Amino acid sequence: MNQTTKEKLELVNGVLSEADKYNHALALINFDMETICPPGAMEEQGELLSFLGNKLFLLIKDEKFIEAGEYLYEHRDELDEFDRVMAEQLHRDYRKIKNLTPEKQLEFSRVFNKAFVDWTNARKNSDFSLFAESLQKVKEVTLEDLSLREKDEETKNMSVMDELLNDYERGMGTKELDACFEHCKERLVPLLKKIQASKKVIRTDFMHRKVTDEQQKKMTEYLMSVIKYDRNRGTYALSEHPFTNLMAKDDVRITTHFYEDDFASNMYSVIHEGGHALFEMYQPVENFEHHINTEKTLGMHESVSRMYENRIGRSKSFVHLIYPKVCEIFPEAMEGVSEKELYEALNEVKASLIRTEADEFTYTFHIIIRYELEKEIMAGTIDIADLPKKWKEKYEEYLGVSPQNDREGVLQDVHWSSGFGYFPTYSIGNMYNSMYYKCMDEAIDVDKCVEAGDFDKINGWMKENVFKKADRLAPSAWIKDITGRDFTPDDFLDYLEEKYSKIYEL
Amino acid sequence: MNQTTKEKLELVNGVLSEADKYNHALALINFDMETICPPGAMEEQGELLSFLGNKLFLLIKDEKFIEAGEYLYEHRDELDEFDRVMAEQLHRDYRKIKNLTPEKQLEFSRVFNKAFVDWTNARKNSDFSLFAESLQKVKEVTLEDLSLREKDEETKNMSVMDELLNDYERGMGTKELDACFEHCKERLVPLLKKIQASKKVIRTDFMHRKVTDEQQKKMTEYLMSVIKYDRNRGTYALSEHPFTNLMAKDDVRITTHFYEDDFASNMYSVIHEGGHALFEMYQPVENFEHHINTEKTLGMHESVSRMYENRIGRSKSFVHLIYPKVCEIFPEAMEGVSEKELYEALNEVKASLIRTEADEFTYTFHIIIRYELEKEIMAGTIDIADLPKKWKEKYEEYLGVSPQNDREGVLQDVHWSSGFGYFPTYSIGNMYNSMYYKCMDEAIDVDKCVEAGDFDKINGWMKENVFKKADRLAPSAWIKDITGRDFTPDDFLDYLEEKYSKIYEL
Repeated sequence: MNQTTKEKLELVNGVLSEADKYNHALALINFDMETICPPGAMEEQGELLSFLGNKLFLLIKDEKFIEAGEYLYEHRDELDEFDRVMAEQLHRDYRKIKNLTPEKQLEFSRVFNKAFVDWTNARKNSDFSLFAESLQKVKEVTLEDLSLREKDEETKNMSVMDELLNDYERGMGTKELDACFEHCKERLVPLLKKIQASKKVIRTDFMHRKVTDEQQKKMTEYLMSVIKYDRNRGTYALSEHPFTNLMAKDDVRITTHFYEDDFASNMYSVIHEGGHALFEMYQPVENFEHHINTEKTLGMHESVSRMYENRIGRSKSFVHLIYPKVCEIFPEAMEGVSEKELYEALNEVKASLIRTEADEFTYTFHIIIRYELEKEIMAGTIDIADLPKKWKEKYEEYLGVSPQNDREGVLQDVHWSSGFGYFPTYSIGNMYNSMYYKCMDEAIDVDKCVEAGDFDKINGWMKENVFKKADRLAPSAWIKDITGRDFTPDDFLDYLEEKYSKIYEL
Repeated sequence: MNQTTKEKLELVNGVLSEADKYNHALALINFDMETICPPGAMEEQGELLSFLGNKLFLLIKDEKFIEAGEYLYEHRDELDEFDRVMAEQLHRDYRKIKNLTPEKQLEFSRVFNKAFVDWTNARKNSDFSLFAESLQKVKEVTLEDLSLREKDEETKNMSVMDELLNDYERGMGTKELDACFEHCKERLVPLLKKIQASKKVIRTDFMHRKVTDEQQKKMTEYLMSVIKYDRNRGTYALSEHPFTNLMAKDDVRITTHFYEDDFASNMYSVIHEGGHALFEMYQPVENFEHHINTEKTLGMHESVSRMYENRIGRSKSFVHLIYPKVCEIFPEAMEGVSEKELYEALNEVKASLIRTEADEFTYTFHIIIRYELEKEIMAGTIDIADLPKKWKEKYEEYLGVSPQNDREGVLQDVHWSSGFGYFPTYSIGNMYNSMYYKCMDEAIDVDKCVEAGDFDKINGWMKENVFKKADRLAPSAWIKDITGRDFTPDDFLDYLEEKYSKIYEL
């Protein structure tokens, strides 16, 4: 590496270290807002987010920093693999913010903050009209933001929707997703009909027996220890919508929620968010040193969380592992419930209204609905005001259920308050993990590990194969690196077909 | 006001609004560290505090800002009362940081952050030697910081200890405190002996009966509602050491702790911290607009928290008010306990080791011990390493009790990890509130209000008389403004004598 490159690298690292600090603070404020912040303080705290976000923006808009970043990008062949990834990312980011003034950035961030506050309020009152105006503004600033970006080779032919999708899952646009979801519909719609026509009766009465917060706390602690979540570098709190928050290298927190009449909701929130947390906790420490620790895509992230939640968490072997403890912690709820009954209840296929509570089979339909609506929003073929109606129609069409109010319909998810293009990553995640689960199973016999509670072995394989290069490779290269194959939804569809044919005795 | 003054004022207000934002972020991070932050993340979060603290420091070291502040101070006669207070405070602060470089400031803040982490660790392990080195450093940077300050008319003849005390309670130095505490000793030592010799038996067995976290949560919510704490603008969390945190105008949080064998500890933490919170919540909104909302001294603050906690909270009328609810929430613990027994148990005088758990009578001795040790630390007549021994000796001398380990001795308080001079404000607070309680009682008959649960009336009087000018007046002027009298410890000593003579039938 020549002297100039070395100096530029030093300068860039200095600025990115400062940026990490701002991001740490922003993550903390966000975490606070979603867990404990009193209602009257939400707006003031939103202003604080905007303030620090603007400081961060000014930092990365600094001319010397940009110049150094662009220099590194041009000389990326001189860099090691980690720094090369960093330089490429800097270049991509630069393209996005080049024409964005700090004033504009502050204006945009205020729109998103207000939208979050309005969504919270609208959801509380189950009244979409309290959110509509903000959502319209979110759409407008999203479009304005995209129009300000400088196009490059990668993005020059992309539609608005393609570019949004690309922000979250590089290389996965409407062409790929349309094909993928059409294929899912082709295979899943007839299978869902068969399941719904099946005579198999799944007992679920006990799933809604009352449990206490104290019991749920114990269950949370237990499950965190089962999957080997590192309590020294993380903790949990309660929030309406469970999430995982990478605060800093040694701080990866999760949230969950306690419903007194649905103990499984907390359990599978903990395992899902716990999966996200493991991904962050057990990534290579070099990622932090080179500031590329947030390069992993959301699709990759969901692949991991959903593997722990569904592929492992709802497997026969996992239910076998936890069954005694579930009975011990919830003696009243589990009275007279067999291991088989618990397994089947946790895998009941039931068309329902709430995405986060959906079973892994019908889940894909919830995503398809959101994806199709987002395409229409961005194309301008749907009015924001009509969203509750369109939402209802889609749910009736795909799942045969109909929300009775906005809270259980269009207001259920927070995501749109910060933009569009996010949802498909949830489904893509299922497809990735079905592909690499096969490899893991060949290498270590997953069911055997699960039954023995040997999550060190599972986490170890994941660390070496799935986590290690996630921040260094684009999704298509990453999944090929793990599995030797190109992306396909078929492994996931095969898995669903096999598992649910057995459960529903088709 | 002339045009230049107007412009300077605008500039200063702009910078102070930014400073408010940094302080909001710092408060949030502190709150997080003391409530939920995982152990492995404490150091990283301390670094974040240093980072943002340094940004704040750079902001207020800006030459134009300082120049404008000094201009306002010189032209303070042109300003309204609020802005005048602000200008005077800016001038005082300027004197303190004039010779402090950002590098020094960062170095100091890192010492304090490390000391906090080390104290936490030392306390956990009950091993003072793990904290000694950091405490020595705290002493050194405290001295260095003081040596860098520019002296002015007010401070030119002050000793090191005087200046530290003055930072927390303006106008209250060693001369005043030595006299005050000597007088306290004169009156309290013989009274304590009489109490200890009294034949009166106070029943306390039930105070250590087991209660659950769920019950304590209910009690916390109940007490917050009794004193009319505004839940829209505040919330509570759990921490080892209870505290109140003014985050922002509409966010004043408290913390408490749950001990399963000491339900009163949580109760009186909530009332104490709740008192602090009321002071912040019901201050004039102009304080925020003029950035003087943190001008109230700690002595003033403790006067309010201790009035709610002790003067009101441990009164017969308050016990009468809450007794039915205490029985309802803790039916097992309160079985067979009369209202009188509860009142007496809450007022038992007992020489003990832990300051925060001490009764209001012996409390003053805990402060005197810390004050005397601090004077020796700052004078260099005691080695840091000898503190545990000296601590033990003082406790034996004044209270006749002796700590068995560092955790219940010298490591019990967090305060020294951030410096010295703070403790006396706790005692001064008791003396202030005994003075103004008389005025309030004449105006609204406090016992009658308490029995009727009419805290709106009490808070209303406090707001008009105690809270209103606290940020605008120095302590001596403030107490005179409320009571028409000069500061004296005698009202407090009279109150103790009268109350405890009755309880102990002297």
